[in-house]
Amino acid sequence: MTYCCALRLEQGMLFISDTRTNAGVDHISIFRKLYTFGVPGERMIVIQASGNLATTQAVIGHIKNQLELKQEPNILSLHTMFDVAELVGSMLKKVIANVTSDISEQSNYYCNLLVGGQLKDQDMQLYHVYPQGNFICATRDTPYFQIGESKYGKPILDRALTYDMPLDEALRCSLISFASTLRSNVSVGMPLDVLVYKKDSLMMPRGKRIAEDDEYFTAISRQWSETLKKGLAELPVPSNEYFL
Amino acid sequence: MTYCCALRLEQGMLFISDTRTNAGVDHISIFRKLYTFGVPGERMIVIQASGNLATTQAVIGHIKNQLELKQEPNILSLHTMFDVAELVGSMLKKVIANVTSDISEQSNYYCNLLVGGQLKDQDMQLYHVYPQGNFICATRDTPYFQIGESKYGKPILDRALTYDMPLDEALRCSLISFASTLRSNVSVGMPLDVLVYKKDSLMMPRGKRIAEDDEYFTAISRQWSETLKKGLAELPVPSNEYFL
Repeated sequence: MTYCCALRLEQGMLFISDTRTNAGVDHISIFRKLYTFGVPGERMIVIQASGNLATTQAVIGHIKNQLELKQEPNILSLHTMFDVAELVGSMLKKVIANVTSDISEQSNYYCNLLVGGQLKDQDMQLYHVYPQGNFICATRDTPYFQIGESKYGKPILDRALTYDMPLDEALRCSLISFASTLRSNVSVGMPLDVLVYKKDSLMMPRGKRIAEDDEYFTAISRQWSETLKKGLAELPVPSNEYFL
Repeated sequence: MTYCCALRLEQGMLFISDTRTNAGVDHISIFRKLYTFGVPGERMIVIQASGNLATTQAVIGHIKNQLELKQEPNILSLHTMFDVAELVGSMLKKVIANVTSDISEQSNYYCNLLVGGQLKDQDMQLYHVYPQGNFICATRDTPYFQIGESKYGKPILDRALTYDMPLDEALRCSLISFASTLRSNVSVGMPLDVLVYKKDSLMMPRGKRIAEDDEYFTAISRQWSETLKKGLAELPVPSNEYFL
């Protein structure tokens, strides 16, 4: 399984992915699920993937191949993020159709993609691209998308995340979302890949990989458990009628 | 969809169910998913259900029918909770098989049941009964079971719930688990049915129904949002390397 989360906020974008893949519980591997494409000062594009690993790698492979062979259009020559999402979506659809034309069989090869980024003089955009090749766009009302094992980590985002939140607060919120998921589901695993992009910087951030023994992540995860326990203890005591 | 949760703790048991059923988003109804059977001073048994409503109602219908017709054995004459779980499991399996003998079709009629309770001079027991009729038993290590839309509400239970927790604290913890689920998934809905059973009391608690406008539930849900926001703000600030 996988958990990827991407945020498009007032001050920038944030991308976090885990790295665990599994084909059965006895076949667990580490694969990067976050891919970056960019031209400094001109564009930066991030793709995150969940689902069938062969499909994911085929899509990323084709994107890189187009660049290698200087085919046009490609992810670095398209003029809008919308066109980038269209390119990625049609590639995804084609890759799946190449495996099998049987529609009901195709779902075995599905993957979901998050495609986010910014082109010079344009707004940042974030898309959730479905295996059918179509996609939806993040908005001020719904500033984040999740793919993969998303449910465990959704409540904290729903309660605390806002569009106008500073990036460092949004980062903490997202990391807690991952900490909760890691704790409740063994199929999502460390290390985590994190990218924080500052709006209009048009530079690909170096990014940070959070390993199993990461001091900061361990510290906030532990502190969060204490926060929850203390918070529960501080809730008003239920009235007697609950115990009759 | 549905969310039901049951806890078997040192001091007693706790059962919470939502009441929303849906067949498509335009066919939403309120159905009680928590059923009680008991003989004061001798036994108390609670059954919670998620999944196909016709299957659930057939199982509960057959259990009541046996009592009505004074058939033996029945849920009030069996001598252990293990036998109760066996009875309920075999009924569930039979009800599904009666709809269709096609194994792959059967999954459309699945439901999952939580069966908990206590018989005089015996320990409390809690079982998760699967649509195949088999079941697992809650333990000190895993003191709770969830059925239905369980993922949103799992992180808080995983982080905060312990076997030796007092019942009122466990109740607050479980209610927050429901509050998070209600917020993140529209297919789980109010009112909630709550039963808190004190160990060895052998009395069916009167129970409490939490309606949409319940003051206590609204208050703890709101306070919890504040707890999370404050808790996030108090987490140590991530180092600069995240933003490079």
